[in-house]
Amino acid sequence: MKDLIPDTIIRFAEKFQLPERVVDSEELPWVPFTDNHSCYFKPLRFDLSTGTWTYLFRIKPNQVLGKHRHTGGAVIGYNLQGKWRYEGRSWVAASGTFIFEPPGDIHTLISEDEEVITLFILSGALQYFDEHDQIVGQDDIYTVLNKYRNYCAAHGIPVREDLIY
Amino acid sequence: MKDLIPDTIIRFAEKFQLPERVVDSEELPWVPFTDNHSCYFKPLRFDLSTGTWTYLFRIKPNQVLGKHRHTGGAVIGYNLQGKWRYEGRSWVAASGTFIFEPPGDIHTLISEDEEVITLFILSGALQYFDEHDQIVGQDDIYTVLNKYRNYCAAHGIPVREDLIY
Amino acid sequence: MKDLIPDTIIRFAEKFQLPERVVDSEELPWVPFTDNHSCYFKPLRFDLSTGTWTYLFRIKPNQVLGKHRHTGGAVIGYNLQGKWRYEGRSWVAASGTFIFEPPGDIHTLISEDEEVITLFILSGALQYFDEHDQIVGQDDIYTVLNKYRNYCAAHGIPVREDLIY
Amino acid sequence: MKDLIPDTIIRFAEKFQLPERVVDSEELPWVPFTDNHSCYFKPLRFDLSTGTWTYLFRIKPNQVLGKHRHTGGAVIGYNLQGKWRYEGRSWVAASGTFIFEPPGDIHTLISEDEEVITLFILSGALQYFDEHDQIVGQDDIYTVLNKYRNYCAAHGIPVREDLIY
Repeated sequence: MKDLIPDTIIRFAEKFQLPERVVDSEELPWVPFTDNHSCYFKPLRFDLSTGTWTYLFRIKPNQVLGKHRHTGGAVIGYNLQGKWRYEGRSWVAASGTFIFEPPGDIHTLISEDEEVITLFILSGALQYFDEHDQIVGQDDIYTVLNKYRNYCAAHGIPVREDLIY
Repeated sequence: MKDLIPDTIIRFAEKFQLPERVVDSEELPWVPFTDNHSCYFKPLRFDLSTGTWTYLFRIKPNQVLGKHRHTGGAVIGYNLQGKWRYEGRSWVAASGTFIFEPPGDIHTLISEDEEVITLFILSGALQYFDEHDQIVGQDDIYTVLNKYRNYCAAHGIPVREDLIY
Repeated sequence: MKDLIPDTIIRFAEKFQLPERVVDSEELPWVPFTDNHSCYFKPLRFDLSTGTWTYLFRIKPNQVLGKHRHTGGAVIGYNLQGKWRYEGRSWVAASGTFIFEPPGDIHTLISEDEEVITLFILSGALQYFDEHDQIVGQDDIYTVLNKYRNYCAAHGIPVREDLIY
Repeated sequence: MKDLIPDTIIRFAEKFQLPERVVDSEELPWVPFTDNHSCYFKPLRFDLSTGTWTYLFRIKPNQVLGKHRHTGGAVIGYNLQGKWRYEGRSWVAASGTFIFEPPGDIHTLISEDEEVITLFILSGALQYFDEHDQIVGQDDIYTVLNKYRNYCAAHGIPVREDLIY
């Protein structure tokens, strides 16, 4: 049965495989996501081939993150710490909650009394609404990468180029 | 070696597998993509889980499709008929050309003398610029699905619900 | 700027969007992954459209999980608890480590003194080698789904059908 | 509205974007897929990050391609020329047919009187059965890449490294 994966293929694959990536999130900075410093992120991966990025997202207690739409991409989340909910929905994300939000979803995130940390995988763009439902800003993989690189530059922190793949 | 995929697993998979989908594009209508009827599409798949859609895209000869950005998603194309290019680039897509455009790419498509038909797979959003580089519109999987359903409704054509999966 | 996403599109998307999915992992059972009960999983998502599955994976302390190849798919992991490594590599995954292993990677996982819990997203198939590098078994999304359903049936636990999407 | 994508972000994205890829399939060789030369492929993309490959697949008339399972990945196809079907199914793929086969699907492909050319996007692994339903071989992104590189080496054709991304 060894011939199912001949040694030649194993050696060939080893030669062409992308390198593994191992990131200790402890070593990464918390980068402010918004100007008001209500939330921060630690980047884990920027996949420039699909526009998908992965980060730890940290939200201060008792915050309301403005209403936004996930245009053209889904949200996958795994909550690590703290509690949060989307306004008007019946569930609360606690430690250990896994969340899928479909492309197009519009929501306003509200954190509870404890600081929140969630692992998020995101694609497409986030488009932010003001109180009149006008779109007043958007984020995508490039704006997030830009926030990270600018933060590193401003604080003299070396950029982890191995997060981009 | 049969035990690598036991019969129980084969029967189990057959029970849970998504149905196959087979679409004869001949049976689908050419739906106008833009108001000026410079281009049309035949939808092949709407993947609402990732925001990815697949369509045949048909462009009349000698058209200029307005400058747009692929925000948050990539473009994969396989050109079937006609020639087109992106303004300012050195290549021309002919029959049999495969194209990958990365997320964030901004381009203006120009068709040559023959009508173009290209198979495209798209994610994220298309954001259109006017001559002052102001964003004046956008498309994503929902606007494309909406164009298709509205066209079917207006022309008494049954909607192919099996394109959504 | 509101016209970038007209109300008609927002209402249309709300009608066609896939439902959100929220899973409290506390409510899910630890399903034995192997006969020797060295590791367990809590399923979070079975994406039958791409063959990708997401689970929490729990490994008893001081275990060696047999050498296997990720044929045709990548590994994405975020380690939540405990320490583990792949035999022969220089790094150790601790709480907060993010890991990407490319398709084709072959490795043997070794847990340290504390019980490990890792969030994994997997595609393709796992193919297991014996000590002579013969392939003696494999897993894919269906075998994992089968383990979960069989466990539920054997223990009178209702299957969470909303994990399949 | 220009501020939705500030010039700084456009310039930033242009700097970090992956390069576009344009492949004229006319310039690529038909690489034998099987030893009996019943089918050939022209590679269009090897995505080593996900194990997904894209190729034009050409099948001689009146062939039967052995029964195989798509373990851990889906099949997306767009038929360009000729007619083919899967044994036992009610449909026939003709020019312009789009096909989705779910992960786990098992089928035997039969071509009709004309040579077939189909664009396929594949993930995971193909596992081949003999007449006793024993698994006697498998392909994945590495075996396909290996066939291509070996063919180039044997025929003095330069490898298109830009197909790997």
